[in-house]
Amino acid sequence: MVFWAKRSHALLLWLGVLENLSPYNKFVSNHLRSWKSESKSCTLQFAILILVHGRARVVECIGEGVQDMKEGDHVLTIFNGECRKCAYCKSESTNLCEKFRVDPLRSVMRNDEKTRFSTQDGKPIYHFLNTSTFSEYTVMESACVVKINPKTPLDKMTLLSCCLSTGFGAVTNTANVQHGSTVAVFGLGAVGLAVIQGAKTRGASKIIGVDINADKHIKGQTMGMTHFINPRDLKVSTHEKIREITEGGVDFSFECAGNLDVLREAFLSTHDGWGLTIVLGIHLTPRMLPLHPMELFDGRRITGSVFGGFKGKSQLALFADQCMHQDGIKLEEFITHELPFNNIDHAFQLLVLGKSIRCLLHL
Amino acid sequence: MVFWAKRSHALLLWLGVLENLSPYNKFVSNHLRSWKSESKSCTLQFAILILVHGRARVVECIGEGVQDMKEGDHVLTIFNGECRKCAYCKSESTNLCEKFRVDPLRSVMRNDEKTRFSTQDGKPIYHFLNTSTFSEYTVMESACVVKINPKTPLDKMTLLSCCLSTGFGAVTNTANVQHGSTVAVFGLGAVGLAVIQGAKTRGASKIIGVDINADKHIKGQTMGMTHFINPRDLKVSTHEKIREITEGGVDFSFECAGNLDVLREAFLSTHDGWGLTIVLGIHLTPRMLPLHPMELFDGRRITGSVFGGFKGKSQLALFADQCMHQDGIKLEEFITHELPFNNIDHAFQLLVLGKSIRCLLHL
Repeated sequence: MVFWAKRSHALLLWLGVLENLSPYNKFVSNHLRSWKSESKSCTLQFAILILVHGRARVVECIGEGVQDMKEGDHVLTIFNGECRKCAYCKSESTNLCEKFRVDPLRSVMRNDEKTRFSTQDGKPIYHFLNTSTFSEYTVMESACVVKINPKTPLDKMTLLSCCLSTGFGAVTNTANVQHGSTVAVFGLGAVGLAVIQGAKTRGASKIIGVDINADKHIKGQTMGMTHFINPRDLKVSTHEKIREITEGGVDFSFECAGNLDVLREAFLSTHDGWGLTIVLGIHLTPRMLPLHPMELFDGRRITGSVFGGFKGKSQLALFADQCMHQDGIKLEEFITHELPFNNIDHAFQLLVLGKSIRCLLHL
Repeated sequence: MVFWAKRSHALLLWLGVLENLSPYNKFVSNHLRSWKSESKSCTLQFAILILVHGRARVVECIGEGVQDMKEGDHVLTIFNGECRKCAYCKSESTNLCEKFRVDPLRSVMRNDEKTRFSTQDGKPIYHFLNTSTFSEYTVMESACVVKINPKTPLDKMTLLSCCLSTGFGAVTNTANVQHGSTVAVFGLGAVGLAVIQGAKTRGASKIIGVDINADKHIKGQTMGMTHFINPRDLKVSTHEKIREITEGGVDFSFECAGNLDVLREAFLSTHDGWGLTIVLGIHLTPRMLPLHPMELFDGRRITGSVFGGFKGKSQLALFADQCMHQDGIKLEEFITHELPFNNIDHAFQLLVLGKSIRCLLHL
C-alpha cells in the first residue's frame, strides 16, 4: 500500500466526475443498496465513501513490501490498476487486471477487505475505484499508483489519471488509428478532446467533432478537429452528414457522451466493411445496445475501451514523458479555469453550463 | 454474365436453406411487400423468384466481356460477389463488395436492373442473392462465379458455396484462431460443424460444441470437437459450464444458431479481457442485441462474419484445392444423406427432425 498526501497547493477538481454527477450518484446508491442488502444492521446513514478516482500527487509513506516507490515520489493514481502477476496482466490483449480492474461496487482494500478511513466516532468510510482521491490524504494499493518523472508538473499530470489517457489511449492503443484515417468524436468533453489530440498526433486526415454545445467548436479546433457538427443545426441525421463528409463514413468513431442514441449515431457514422466504434461513455441505463444483430453483417464493429487500453503501471510513466515533449499534445488546453476552493459552487455551475473542461481549485 | 447449366447427375438440395425455411419465407415476404409498396399494379401472385444461393456447376455459355471463364468450366456460385474494382474489393479489411454484397431485397440483375427469367405468360421471375440456383439453369454476373479445378468433385464443392466457407473461414479469416486457442461453437448445423473443422485444422486446444440435439454429439466428435454440451442437460447456464471447462471462458465463440438468447450465451462464454464472439447465425427478429453497453468494458468483443471473410473470386479456388488435399477437412461428413429427387419430402422431414446435415438428391 502507498500512503500519500497533498503537498501541492492546487487541487484539481475532477469535473469529469462532476460532469457525470448523476451517474456517480447512482453508483453510490448502488453501493448503499448493496450494503443494505448484505447487512440488515447497515443503514443508509452509515455508508460514507470518498469519491473521485484520479490525481497526481506525492507519496507520504509506503507500506511493507512496496519496492517500486518511496516517500517523496511523484505519482499518478490509476483506477484501473495493474498487479503485473495475474493472467490478464501477463496477456498483451487486455489492460484489465484480475484484482484491480474497475469495480464501482468494491469499497474496501483488496488485501484485508477493510477500509483505511473512519469517521470520528469509528464508523468506516469506504473506498471508491481503488483510489478515493477527493481528499487530502488517501491510502492505495501500489498496483494503482504509478511513479512519474518529478520534473513533470503535477497539476497537468492529473489529467493522465483519467480523461487524457482514456481518450488518447483509445486512439493509439484500442483503435490504433493510422496516418490518413478518418475519425469522428461524439461528445467534446475532456475525453472527447483527448481523442481529438490523439487522432491529430496520429495524423488522421479528417477529425470530426460532434457536440450539441456550440462553444465546443473553437476548443475542438484548438485541439486539432477539422470539422464540427452540431446535430441541432442539421436537417439530416448526424451519421448521414458524416457519411457525406467522408464519402461513406469514418474509419473510427468514438462515443464519449454516455448516451445510447448518440452511440447508435456513432456506430452508423463509420464506414461499412471496416468501421470501428469505440465506446468510452459511461452508460448507466437499463437499455441494451441499440444495434440489431444483422447490422453486424455490414462489417461495422464495436468495442469498449477502459483507460484507453493503457496498462498503467507499465506504460503510463512513458506516456507522461511523451505528453511533456511531443508536439501537438496540449495539456494546458484542458484546464480552462482556475478558482479558489471557496468558489467550488461556481466551478460546478461552469460545468453544468458547459463552460469548463477541467477547473483547478486552489486551496 | 455467365449462363450455366446442370450437367451433373446430382442436385445438392440446400438443406441449409430449408433448415432456415421460415426465415427465408420472411425474406420472400419482405420481397413481396417491397414490390407491392413500390408498384400498385404489382400484386402478390405475380411475384415469383428462384430461391437458393449456392451450387457448384458447369458453365453453359458466357456473355460479352467475360474473360476469366469459358464454356465447360467448373464453377462455384457465391452469393457474396467480388467485382474486384470497388473500394471495398480493393480493401484488405472487408470481403463485402459495393455491388454484389448480400442483399436479400435485390431481385434483378445489376447491369440493367432486369430479370433473366419469366413465366410462360411473360411475367418476370425474380433473382435471389445474386445466384438463384434452385434451378437447372441460371444466369449470373461473373463477379459471383468462381472457376475451380475441374478435378474437384462438383457435389462436394457445392459445400463451399456457403456453409463450409462460412464456418471454416470465420475461424481462419475473421477470428484468426491460433494453435492452442479455445473455441465454443453454438449450433452444430453445417456451419457450426465447419467451424469445428476450421478450429481443428488450426490446432485449437479445446473445441466445445453446444446443441440441444443430442445426435450432434457424435457428428461433432467426428469433425474434431473435444467437448459437447447439451444445455438441456445442465443445471447451470451454458456460459457458466464453458467458463468452468476453460477456467474463465473460451478465446472465441461462434454463434451459428440464429437465436438471440443463444447469442448472449455465446458472448458470455468468452474470456473477459480478450474473448471474441463471431456471429454467423441469421437473426430475423425485431429484437436488438441482448448486450448491455457497459458489458463491452469487460473486454469481450463481438463481430459479424459474412461468407467466412473470404473474398470469393480471389480466394475460393485456392480454398477448394485446400479442401481436397488438407488432412482433417472432411467434406464427405457433411453429406449425410442421398435420396432420389422424388423423395424430397422425406429429405425435408430428415431436416426438420435434425437427422441430416446436407442431403444429396439424385435426379
